[in-house]
Amino acid sequence: MELRHTHRLFIDAALAHNLTLQPDVGQTHYLQNVLRLKTGDVVRLFNGRDGEWKASVAAVAKRSITLALHKQTRPQQATPDLWLCCAPIKKAHFDTMIEKATELGVTVIQPVLTARTQIREVNTDRCRAIAIEAAEQSDRLTIPDIRKPVTLDDMSTHWPAERQLVVCAEWGDADPIGNVFAGSREEAQKPTAILTGPEGGFAAEELETVRRLATARFVRLGPRILRADTAAIAALSCWQAMCGDWKD
Amino acid sequence: MELRHTHRLFIDAALAHNLTLQPDVGQTHYLQNVLRLKTGDVVRLFNGRDGEWKASVAAVAKRSITLALHKQTRPQQATPDLWLCCAPIKKAHFDTMIEKATELGVTVIQPVLTARTQIREVNTDRCRAIAIEAAEQSDRLTIPDIRKPVTLDDMSTHWPAERQLVVCAEWGDADPIGNVFAGSREEAQKPTAILTGPEGGFAAEELETVRRLATARFVRLGPRILRADTAAIAALSCWQAMCGDWKD
Repeated sequence: MELRHTHRLFIDAALAHNLTLQPDVGQTHYLQNVLRLKTGDVVRLFNGRDGEWKASVAAVAKRSITLALHKQTRPQQATPDLWLCCAPIKKAHFDTMIEKATELGVTVIQPVLTARTQIREVNTDRCRAIAIEAAEQSDRLTIPDIRKPVTLDDMSTHWPAERQLVVCAEWGDADPIGNVFAGSREEAQKPTAILTGPEGGFAAEELETVRRLATARFVRLGPRILRADTAAIAALSCWQAMCGDWKD
Repeated sequence: MELRHTHRLFIDAALAHNLTLQPDVGQTHYLQNVLRLKTGDVVRLFNGRDGEWKASVAAVAKRSITLALHKQTRPQQATPDLWLCCAPIKKAHFDTMIEKATELGVTVIQPVLTARTQIREVNTDRCRAIAIEAAEQSDRLTIPDIRKPVTLDDMSTHWPAERQLVVCAEWGDADPIGNVFAGSREEAQKPTAILTGPEGGFAAEELETVRRLATARFVRLGPRILRADTAAIAALSCWQAMCGDWKD
């Protein structure tokens, strides 16, 4: 099998030459009972720090599997500094948002609780599992950092001064997203966060709060009303295409 | 209730001043038993031809409902001429693709059967229902035309000469999508179709076939591997932002 068609596995352990390692119980189950790997089968491993490694199954026992690392197949690489700050939405659409945001290369997913956010609980372990699977399938070398939910007020109060905040909301001086991202290349390439609201949108006073942040930019995503997950995917795609690592 | 918060309903009948009309059985059920509309309640109607109309419930009987049209709230408008030609993929992700493509304003969805397409049957009625719901919620004045599946060969043979075909596949001279759409504005604004493949990608000989079309352009969507539905949503978003009706 060609290396690029072998399974990729995120693993939370150091990766280096001549190491052998034993995945945890959950991954061992997955490797043995879902992928049905046998001695000699090849997988690729990454941990977010040490690049991607070719490994093979050295031994299979009843409840353990031993992987032997052979060589690094890709060095660790820096990726564009792009966050998604998103109000949680209904489950299936939130799952889609996490999956797609991971494929689209976000480094941080920050759930944000807003006035109209109906879903107040976020299962970050579940989100992390979705993100890990999407990272494994998309050839990423990292997984996004899934943060604990914060309120929009707290997020605004502690907003990092150097990070551009692109707010997906038609309000006040919202500009077409393509104009904003095609503008000053220098500004566009600053560390960036995309902010999307809940199903019911942001409250006007919330937008006023966000507006006070020096780095906030309001963007419009056309004349149709987009669902929150569509808006997030669209904005992230436009950013990667115009400012991120989809360019030459 | 503000007009923009009233329900929108796609209806396959002429809309004009002082008309009354009775929706079909399915819509009547939906209006009576799901939305629980009562006499006097306001809805907005569109049919893809006559703009959007404010209507109200004039009468409710056991199995029929009568809507009275009051005034046109928006005139019919032309929308950018954008098709999505897509290999069918597994159900949940194909549903996502239809929903998002509709929100993103495509005028035609053309399922395309390729060598590696595992899903060979497309329930176009089901796709149309998903598209209608997405159109109702996204404030569109049209619904996309969901076509019957064709093979990639047939599609290529009968490709309309004036329509640009943007192929989402890393192959040969694929350019970053942002570069292609930011290029000649005149070329970018031609009637366009985005083509996405099945889970396993296109076969090399298929790409060679498509490559022979004079208007075909191959585009890259960054260094990560995107699912087919993500690729479609991303490419459509970039096109609308850079060439379509998301611009000023």
